[in-house]
Amino acid sequence: MATKALDYSKLYAKGLPPAAGPWEGLYKYNFVTGHGDPDLIPVEGFIESITKALEKEGPNLAVYYSDGGPLGNLALREYLVKKLKKHRGIDVSVDEVMICSGSTQCILLINDTLLEPGDVVLTELFSYSGALNNAKKSGARVVGVPMDDDGMKTDELERILTELQDEGIKPKYIYTIPTCQNPTGTNLPMERRREMLRISQEFGVPIFEDECYADLIFEGEWEHAIRSLDDTNHVLHIGSFSKSLAPGVRLGYIVAPQDVINQIVSSKIDVGTNMVTPMMIAGFLEDNYEEHIETVRDMLHRKKDVLVASMREHFGPTVEFYEPRGGMVMWFKFPEGVDTMEPLEAAKERGLIYNPGAEWTADPENYGSNFIRICYGLPTEQELREGVAVLAEVFQGELGD
Amino acid sequence: MATKALDYSKLYAKGLPPAAGPWEGLYKYNFVTGHGDPDLIPVEGFIESITKALEKEGPNLAVYYSDGGPLGNLALREYLVKKLKKHRGIDVSVDEVMICSGSTQCILLINDTLLEPGDVVLTELFSYSGALNNAKKSGARVVGVPMDDDGMKTDELERILTELQDEGIKPKYIYTIPTCQNPTGTNLPMERRREMLRISQEFGVPIFEDECYADLIFEGEWEHAIRSLDDTNHVLHIGSFSKSLAPGVRLGYIVAPQDVINQIVSSKIDVGTNMVTPMMIAGFLEDNYEEHIETVRDMLHRKKDVLVASMREHFGPTVEFYEPRGGMVMWFKFPEGVDTMEPLEAAKERGLIYNPGAEWTADPENYGSNFIRICYGLPTEQELREGVAVLAEVFQGELGD
Repeated sequence: MATKALDYSKLYAKGLPPAAGPWEGLYKYNFVTGHGDPDLIPVEGFIESITKALEKEGPNLAVYYSDGGPLGNLALREYLVKKLKKHRGIDVSVDEVMICSGSTQCILLINDTLLEPGDVVLTELFSYSGALNNAKKSGARVVGVPMDDDGMKTDELERILTELQDEGIKPKYIYTIPTCQNPTGTNLPMERRREMLRISQEFGVPIFEDECYADLIFEGEWEHAIRSLDDTNHVLHIGSFSKSLAPGVRLGYIVAPQDVINQIVSSKIDVGTNMVTPMMIAGFLEDNYEEHIETVRDMLHRKKDVLVASMREHFGPTVEFYEPRGGMVMWFKFPEGVDTMEPLEAAKERGLIYNPGAEWTADPENYGSNFIRICYGLPTEQELREGVAVLAEVFQGELGD
Repeated sequence: MATKALDYSKLYAKGLPPAAGPWEGLYKYNFVTGHGDPDLIPVEGFIESITKALEKEGPNLAVYYSDGGPLGNLALREYLVKKLKKHRGIDVSVDEVMICSGSTQCILLINDTLLEPGDVVLTELFSYSGALNNAKKSGARVVGVPMDDDGMKTDELERILTELQDEGIKPKYIYTIPTCQNPTGTNLPMERRREMLRISQEFGVPIFEDECYADLIFEGEWEHAIRSLDDTNHVLHIGSFSKSLAPGVRLGYIVAPQDVINQIVSSKIDVGTNMVTPMMIAGFLEDNYEEHIETVRDMLHRKKDVLVASMREHFGPTVEFYEPRGGMVMWFKFPEGVDTMEPLEAAKERGLIYNPGAEWTADPENYGSNFIRICYGLPTEQELREGVAVLAEVFQGELGD
């Protein structure tokens, strides 16, 4: 008798997320994910730097960790030490910087190191879905802290920490995206950064500072990182090259006290981060970063203006929003009672994809379902205009006007 | 009063591995890790292929998943479909192949998808430490199946499965490295591959086939993968470019039924594998693989001969070993009672590092402590000769003759 095909569904571990459906490909009006603009990938610069690097160090690819040990490419860490000092006010050594596969791996590793089931973590009420989901996957309870147009409200943070303290609960960390916050686009003013650090020190709860958008401020004050204010080890800082350079390089970094880095190394069991792309970008950045990032900021600034104008034109006062000073995402609030998930399928049929708000909130039962997130890095200005027109038609069709 | 520095040791999750010590760098006589030979990295070929790829597809680096969706670079998957057919006898579609960050990530993802605490997995008694450790980290109990010079003994496999069945235990998988096994260097004959598949089907326990060394056979029969014999979904197959090309590219792949791939995708929350190196190697492999891998095999064959001759010269009949027909590792057995961990520090002081056997066994309390693993891919022939002489001196000094 023929053997029956094995049914793996009976073998899967309990509690897995549902299986992925077939990949939907890339929509014409692609308003999701932190994509960049393909026209701004510095192809010639990348070819030049990777050619030089391979000629000099190519043979090292044969040897695990030969580019700088488990913390990753040393030239890139040396560059980061300078860049963090100059742009973010952060003063660290190469032994406090670790290269990872995108800032997503940074989040996974920090959560692996700190979280266990039952832990509590605090985040901005609206926050990065990847960070929220990964903390929940580790078994943590995520508590959202209310925000305003200046980001997390530090008085609310202190109130919540006090309440939790009264219940005998000490959260594992305060996760914040202080600069060009995802999804709200807000920036935490320096005064609140100082206040957040004071609260962190007072309650003994570290800050997990995610600055993956920090290079993308295009107007107004340029706030330093919270990590720059701290000489008491209260801040774990992460960043990324995905937004400033290209997500396809999959490179992020953790800045942490050396003993924490050493602990994280023991959980980083991927036998090292890719060695080719750090080679490629270390040389490129050293020579070209300042000029390159200016063109990225200008592009995002223009696209943000187009998106704002188009949303005003098509939605008028129906939709409220904060107009960001940087970054690549915007967060639009529809009237209470609107469920922005409903028009999504109709939008996809028209070639448009956006993020319904419920996935970007720490408290989806009570907040977020009347918001949408739009990422404006990838679409052209024309596609932004057309896409917003489609969005308006779809929302009117599904929800009425 | 000044705020005290935060002590993270009180915040760490329970059960973490110990923090890593400072990186020891690369030893002169580097007999550990599956390094390749730096002289065989095809630097010119890589420069040519990455230049072509960046010129054509560089702008795509701005867009997550634009090279082929969550399963990874489509050109590389198309190449793999052809290569697996030609070299391993495996007949699959691109939707059954997923690109990952090294075969280590393949193992992590399969374990994330299948294992929960209390599960049992079977492996060769001596096996890859990364696979053993990761299964244990998932809470699984690892049961080692006895081996001989033809790899896992299938009669022992059937006996153990029967015993476990009598206890009401159904293991989650049979992990095997059938070709150029790590650490023993053995090859499972076709007859045993068929037998292992029959047993897998009979007990409904899938085979987890790790073929990361399968391209490195340098003499004798070229066995096909177990996956090539199976049309009943009983084999999950993984492979790697680390050994055939370069570990620094960090690229491996999973071959699995499409529904299993879809389930694994939902656990692969790294927002995609690096996009630059697949671009680089897809073009290179298409044009140069056959020629390149011949030079790698010749190099390993020569170095294996040097290692065998040096071990015979310096250790004589004290040390027993199986002489492999392929791969890059050898497994040396010292007399019972010798603990190969003991001379390690003295060896390091002489610039030599090797793997004590206890880390490469499913049952370290009873087996393996009188073995050492030597990786011979990186050292030059001269370094192999000198290093074995140092090894002999160190072992004589520490253990007596």
